[in-house]
Amino acid sequence: MSRTEIKDYGEFGLIHHLTKNIEIQNASSILGVGDDAAVIDHFGKQTVVSTDMLIEGVHFDLSYTPLKHLGYKSVIVNLSDIYAMNATPTQILLSVGISNKLSVEALEEFYEGVYAACEEHGVDLVGGDTCSSQKGFIISITAIGEATEDKIVKRSTAQQGDLICCSGDLGGAYIGLLFLEREKKIYLESPGVQPDLENESYVIGRLLKPKARKDIHELLNEKEIIPTSMMDISDGLSSELLHICENSGVGCVIYEEKLPVHEDSRKAAYKFEIDPTACALSGGEDYELLFTIKQDDYEKLTLSENISVIGYITDSEQGAKIKTKGGNTYNITAQGWNAFKAS
Amino acid sequence: MSRTEIKDYGEFGLIHHLTKNIEIQNASSILGVGDDAAVIDHFGKQTVVSTDMLIEGVHFDLSYTPLKHLGYKSVIVNLSDIYAMNATPTQILLSVGISNKLSVEALEEFYEGVYAACEEHGVDLVGGDTCSSQKGFIISITAIGEATEDKIVKRSTAQQGDLICCSGDLGGAYIGLLFLEREKKIYLESPGVQPDLENESYVIGRLLKPKARKDIHELLNEKEIIPTSMMDISDGLSSELLHICENSGVGCVIYEEKLPVHEDSRKAAYKFEIDPTACALSGGEDYELLFTIKQDDYEKLTLSENISVIGYITDSEQGAKIKTKGGNTYNITAQGWNAFKAS
Repeated sequence: MSRTEIKDYGEFGLIHHLTKNIEIQNASSILGVGDDAAVIDHFGKQTVVSTDMLIEGVHFDLSYTPLKHLGYKSVIVNLSDIYAMNATPTQILLSVGISNKLSVEALEEFYEGVYAACEEHGVDLVGGDTCSSQKGFIISITAIGEATEDKIVKRSTAQQGDLICCSGDLGGAYIGLLFLEREKKIYLESPGVQPDLENESYVIGRLLKPKARKDIHELLNEKEIIPTSMMDISDGLSSELLHICENSGVGCVIYEEKLPVHEDSRKAAYKFEIDPTACALSGGEDYELLFTIKQDDYEKLTLSENISVIGYITDSEQGAKIKTKGGNTYNITAQGWNAFKAS
Repeated sequence: MSRTEIKDYGEFGLIHHLTKNIEIQNASSILGVGDDAAVIDHFGKQTVVSTDMLIEGVHFDLSYTPLKHLGYKSVIVNLSDIYAMNATPTQILLSVGISNKLSVEALEEFYEGVYAACEEHGVDLVGGDTCSSQKGFIISITAIGEATEDKIVKRSTAQQGDLICCSGDLGGAYIGLLFLEREKKIYLESPGVQPDLENESYVIGRLLKPKARKDIHELLNEKEIIPTSMMDISDGLSSELLHICENSGVGCVIYEEKLPVHEDSRKAAYKFEIDPTACALSGGEDYELLFTIKQDDYEKLTLSENISVIGYITDSEQGAKIKTKGGNTYNITAQGWNAFKAS
């Protein structure tokens, strides 16, 4: 594979090279890459914006993350925030800090993933910044979306009696991370040993190529359900549930037996001798949607196998609880990912 | 001075700590920090967005950059992009990657500068991301602004015969950088020597505390002048002029004697035995506005001492030229800051 040094392009040449094939998808994207700022026109709708920063060595490890997947995931985690507002993503801005370690070809792979995610979600890349980094790859993405005022869903409006719902399944991404970290360690100690990941494609896919739940956003819209509160699960179910409870001034009860865990995740967890429920509660990066609905809306969702009802909202004095399969009740504690304590 | 470790707060605690005193300034900022995304309402206006990333060791040096100034400048460079679209900035999103080297107190100083810039420009901080960085301080800001459709000014619409205008004065920030780099070198070699910067407050101020030209944006509005093209000068006058010429398909002539250089910058340049004109053409980070106007609008600007007319737009075959005080004509070449060639 050929290697072109980034300095051969210069900043403007590089931006042009990486963005020259962009095609604008939304009529509202009036002006995209190539000027000081992007222009977005909204006709009476509300603009929703969210931003996330990803840093090599903190949020991703290039030794086992293919760059195309990284580009894809970087966009997905931002779009997930927009869907979590019950809004439709329309544009992103992408800034990258690049070390000389990366070749232009490597960066192209990254952008391939970025564009794949944009295409899948009908989103335009309308701007950004490209600069050099002395150490490591840095990615910062801002996602912009739109919604009519009455559709926007916050995390602070759950009410007592509401049902707690969760899309997809939980814990897989965390278990995938455990496998990749283990294989990395083995590889570093004995470079000749081939990785043993053949049966773990599900959990590894959950980590490296998460989905933003556009389908759930569309389903809710189609069924005319406006959740009473919503968040995406990036730091772990426990952590997000506590956010909803704290911000809404409510408590909750969830049931261990109702937590959605994929069969492959369960088997993989047992290989590490860890509890799949703990992974579902505290593992991050699944990017599923956690939301609450009025009990009256329950009927509308009964045939949706992509959504599990895992519990209900109580009053704040009850606290946040989980009932285990064994019949015990415990307080839910936030053990999700914490970037500062981890370091 | 006390030192609180960032890990003592945790991510959410830290965000809360740093943003708890924010007061929303714009009616359009419907939802700010504390949810998945910010919500911005625009009534028929167009939304303008721009983003910039600043990396320690590449864009700033903490050994001579006070954190409050850094916070202020990080916002300013983004707002400058919004003014350069002839739009009014309304919101920013701020993401920071923080190493353990920084204390909470240091970060508070940084945010003080951020809030000072926000207040000065009537802008709301509505969201962002806080994460840990293994190496160095990383800042990514997205600025959002608004304008009615007919007022937005691109860089691609300059026309033959238009006058080329420039706000403020040029080259000062670059000369300020030369002084600070020199003093840093002396300090590293002989830590006992006191810095000799007493007479250089103007150029050092230009580097550490640049202004985004809100006043020029307002003046143009008041005088009912819509520039035919506009950019902010971040990489150097030469580089930006070439962008306007290339994007508009035109040429230009500028006059050395018309270039605005502050008396203090001129004196400071001579101390380094460099040509003030070279600093004005190639020095970056002045964050002045470069714009073109129709000749008919010239009269409206004659009494504005903050704006210099430095030349005019020609057809593309003439290229981009500068006429020197000595009567010679040279091609303008881009020698502005290039992050990749510099490293």
